[in-house]
Amino acid sequence: MLTIDADRLWQSLMDLARIGATPKGGVRRITLTEEDRRGRDQFVAWCREAGLAVEVDRIGNIFGRRAGTDPAALPVAMGSHLDSQPSGGKFDGAYGVMAGLEVVRTLNDAGVRTRAPVEVAAWTNEEGSRFVPTMMGSGVYAGVYELEYALAQKDVEGVSVREALAATGYAGPAAPHKLGAYFETHIEQGPVLEHTKTTIGVVLGALGQRWFDLAITGQDSHAGPTPMETRKDALLAASRLVVEVNRIATTFPDYARGTVGFMQVKPNSRNVVPGEVRMTVDLRNAKDATLTAMVEELKRCLARIAAECRVEAKLDEVVYFPPSEFAPELVASVREGAKGFGYSHRDIVSGAAHDAVYMARIAPTAMVFVPCEGGISHNEIENARAEDIAAGCNVLLHAVVQRAGAL
Amino acid sequence: MLTIDADRLWQSLMDLARIGATPKGGVRRITLTEEDRRGRDQFVAWCREAGLAVEVDRIGNIFGRRAGTDPAALPVAMGSHLDSQPSGGKFDGAYGVMAGLEVVRTLNDAGVRTRAPVEVAAWTNEEGSRFVPTMMGSGVYAGVYELEYALAQKDVEGVSVREALAATGYAGPAAPHKLGAYFETHIEQGPVLEHTKTTIGVVLGALGQRWFDLAITGQDSHAGPTPMETRKDALLAASRLVVEVNRIATTFPDYARGTVGFMQVKPNSRNVVPGEVRMTVDLRNAKDATLTAMVEELKRCLARIAAECRVEAKLDEVVYFPPSEFAPELVASVREGAKGFGYSHRDIVSGAAHDAVYMARIAPTAMVFVPCEGGISHNEIENARAEDIAAGCNVLLHAVVQRAGAL
Repeated sequence: MLTIDADRLWQSLMDLARIGATPKGGVRRITLTEEDRRGRDQFVAWCREAGLAVEVDRIGNIFGRRAGTDPAALPVAMGSHLDSQPSGGKFDGAYGVMAGLEVVRTLNDAGVRTRAPVEVAAWTNEEGSRFVPTMMGSGVYAGVYELEYALAQKDVEGVSVREALAATGYAGPAAPHKLGAYFETHIEQGPVLEHTKTTIGVVLGALGQRWFDLAITGQDSHAGPTPMETRKDALLAASRLVVEVNRIATTFPDYARGTVGFMQVKPNSRNVVPGEVRMTVDLRNAKDATLTAMVEELKRCLARIAAECRVEAKLDEVVYFPPSEFAPELVASVREGAKGFGYSHRDIVSGAAHDAVYMARIAPTAMVFVPCEGGISHNEIENARAEDIAAGCNVLLHAVVQRAGAL
Repeated sequence: MLTIDADRLWQSLMDLARIGATPKGGVRRITLTEEDRRGRDQFVAWCREAGLAVEVDRIGNIFGRRAGTDPAALPVAMGSHLDSQPSGGKFDGAYGVMAGLEVVRTLNDAGVRTRAPVEVAAWTNEEGSRFVPTMMGSGVYAGVYELEYALAQKDVEGVSVREALAATGYAGPAAPHKLGAYFETHIEQGPVLEHTKTTIGVVLGALGQRWFDLAITGQDSHAGPTPMETRKDALLAASRLVVEVNRIATTFPDYARGTVGFMQVKPNSRNVVPGEVRMTVDLRNAKDATLTAMVEELKRCLARIAAECRVEAKLDEVVYFPPSEFAPELVASVREGAKGFGYSHRDIVSGAAHDAVYMARIAPTAMVFVPCEGGISHNEIENARAEDIAAGCNVLLHAVVQRAGAL
């Protein structure tokens, strides 16, 4: 059974992590900065060493292609992103790109030829920490965003994506090409695999997300003289809604999640009944119909609470991101790969979005998750075990070879 | 029936309000500032015009005394405070002092002699906005605070009460003297009288208060990848407690009140489950035993919520202020006064503390409340109707004459 070189993969990850390395062992390689350019240059050099044909498209996505034997076959791509959070880790994104490179190196070493071409992709600006929106490169590639729209986005210093691409030398000429399949390996960025002592997460899809801003307006009043029955307590209404969001997320099916992460109280004084609260609501679900039902239940609860607490509530939807279901045949080959290598595995749904979510709109897509320490990501202490990193890459190798057709 | 001069009372309030007047029609007469000195000087001048003997004690409390016919009788005092919040109104405090002055003027005009002396008191630093603690002058007078402790308190610029008293010339020589009774008229600073279209609030006492600081510690985690069942959501725990505080305050008897006025969430980011919340809890009740039972129920709820939400909770009591019950015979004379004048009236409990709360510890005490517009106080737009202001003063006149014994 063909297997990847675990040490080589780990070494590539560690070598890449030296570019933008932080004192605490993390990585600061913000998109389209000098550090990102150096990371890209390193990746391109490794692609060329592996004999891949490199092309760069107009939003700076990089593709390294290993030719197949059938000129008509659409390429099977693997990838993720090389940019990091401002205080990011060594694995988020980098793992998916380095795993793709390791698959190609393994095919080279074993002299395996595939019917379809095999590609390694590095998508521009997945993190969105310098330029919004997040997942910009894959979003443009998948037609979610217009190229011109993306190029015109500016960072806080007024530098546009177009200017930053030109400065790094990664404003390429290539137009998007069709893909036969897309695979992405990624650390879970959550606690489930570690908690259940599972090596491989077979990712069924990604949760849909609906994000809301909520403003609740009651009336300030003195905590002493104001009887309970005449109060218009915005914080009481907000708190009741937090409890309902939690109830909705724990009682609805299909991997429902609900979070109030932000809350601001005014005037925020110990002995004044709060007259105003601003807060957010983040609802997620694997099925769009269930997500819609959660939103409807949220609105019903909010209307009832507002009436009972005598407050005004204004709910604005700020993000809608539909659930994505990955391609069943690719998901099955990931699961079979894990079984074949004897890895413990479980089906899982990605709570966060990844480039794969956009790629799923234009090609059959699947993802492989591996555990990360404490479920922690977007942090310099992000960590993963070398044997899990290798296992995920072996599963990727299996799925890619199956899809691309080994001769 | 003897009645006060409504126009003179109103004019005195408006004249006093010119000292420290703000553009929006309020008053800024922060304790022991130049504005406070001018307000005190005006009050003392009016006392002298009314033939009162003025004395100032070591914490700056001012007493204007009208002699009685019985040298052994303890004085019947009326009063409140002349200092204001930084953006205060014309009536909070000033009304109680000017009403006392008007009672004396009325007795003078009618040539009424009383058995006991009648005094008008102006207590130092009720508001506490420059020097803490609040109600400093009456607190020292009643023996709640040591004089030296109070004199040593400093404002944010490092100026002590002792220095500020010396600068304004109101560091007097007088020691506290015994009082036979104390009456305080005050705007309600709440909505009940206005809401129920009542002219006179017959104040039975003041709510006890127990204030808490609460720190809840859970664990930050990503809103997407973290399943509901493994979260340690500090904001969910905090919100459940807000709901319980409201339940406790609405179901316990004896004028129970409960407020969470302050809440701070960390990291306070839309898609991160909050790991930390700091908040306050303010519980009030007219009966100490019921207040204690409310606190015990709060602690039970908190323990249950902390366990269910898998968070740590640290509850610290920062203020305990026992309920005060006013003297039944004085409360009855306030009620009879309101009836006698044909004013609508209702029994009420003060949700906030007043100088009368400390005076109740050393003398039979009662208060008279009148409505204020929208229940609003501690604000430049604080307002009251001249006829309600006059009505409260008539009731005061009746109660004081009854207590002091008109000849």
